Amino acid sequence: MLGVGAPLLGSIEPTERADAARNRQLLLDAAQELVREHGVDSLTMDALAKRAGVGKGTVFRRFGSRAGLMVALLDHSEHKYQHGFMFGPPPLGPGAPPVDRLIAFGRARLLDIEVEGDLYRAAENGEAGDRYSGPPYMLLKAHVSMLLREADVAGEVPLLADGLLADLGAALVMHQMHALGYSREQIGDNWEAFVRRVVTPRSPVE
Amino acid sequence: MLGVGAPLLGSIEPTERADAARNRQLLLDAAQELVREHGVDSLTMDALAKRAGVGKGTVFRRFGSRAGLMVALLDHSEHKYQHGFMFGPPPLGPGAPPVDRLIAFGRARLLDIEVEGDLYRAAENGEAGDRYSGPPYMLLKAHVSMLLREADVAGEVPLLADGLLADLGAALVMHQMHALGYSREQIGDNWEAFVRRVVTPRSPVE
Repeated sequence: MLGVGAPLLGSIEPTERADAARNRQLLLDAAQELVREHGVDSLTMDALAKRAGVGKGTVFRRFGSRAGLMVALLDHSEHKYQHGFMFGPPPLGPGAPPVDRLIAFGRARLLDIEVEGDLYRAAENGEAGDRYSGPPYMLLKAHVSMLLREADVAGEVPLLADGLLADLGAALVMHQMHALGYSREQIGDNWEAFVRRVVTPRSPVE
Repeated sequence: MLGVGAPLLGSIEPTERADAARNRQLLLDAAQELVREHGVDSLTMDALAKRAGVGKGTVFRRFGSRAGLMVALLDHSEHKYQHGFMFGPPPLGPGAPPVDRLIAFGRARLLDIEVEGDLYRAAENGEAGDRYSGPPYMLLKAHVSMLLREADVAGEVPLLADGLLADLGAALVMHQMHALGYSREQIGDNWEAFVRRVVTPRSPVE
């Protein structure tokens, strides 16, 4: 019996883990839809359970609390974005000229901030002085720096990358949208103008 | 007696107020020197009293607490900076071309952040989402916007001003100085490159 049971257990466990991971993904996708449709305040453990068609207990078991759900959701959203600019289709992903990728990078970020800005802003404030040393920021910066180098931009690339990324801060963008009344398109157009001016290729004499 | 006493009282009161204001200025100048020489942690009510040659009670009466002193010091520092770019000598103040004024504006801010960054960063975090609606930020933005218009820059000036100012955020600059090891000069040179690229005058066809 052991000879049969052991392999069976061995094959069930990974499947259960894969199921758990898939269920977690489904719950996070449902949470993201809720936030996109009705704002972050609409995202309660109750509402998520209803939306995903599971019991409230399942939601609590997965995320522990609403705060835990928020962290998981931000992580989920950052991962989707990271996946998009690293492996997704052009112009955000590989295969387009660096300037076009930078422009798409900003416009995609603005969309995320428009729908999940509260999450991003909370993360910016929460990490306090640590924000710029955290893995999410470092990955964005590495990506922007790579594109600036690919575009053969003159100057100190890491500092230029910081300067560009600062223009995409969630608190700033939310202020521009909600306090100043700019549309995502207007802010995206400004990002594009910003990028096109900063990405001045190295002149032959430099 | 009343005929004599009343004018006397009237003339003493303003003098006392002027004295109080002058003493407050002297205390804040002494506090600023302490921070510039030994860092913000060195600034205690005791140290300030010794430095200014007054009793500790005087310092507490003026500022209430160390936190009150910090707020007053930031205010003092912002006012000096504001006075410099609005009324001071060129290139920071009026009389220089707008691009030169913008470059000087950033370099002066970097000096303030180098010596009082903790204060500025605490203010950025403390005001949370409100940072961009507060009077200090709005004054900086009005000034940068004015210079961008004077330079006849194409595009949505308030958004470009936000983008430039984001590059001078205290938390970002302190990360660049302390975590990444850039000097103030290097960050200033990057600011200058940033400004020169963003301030592209409107082309005749636009």
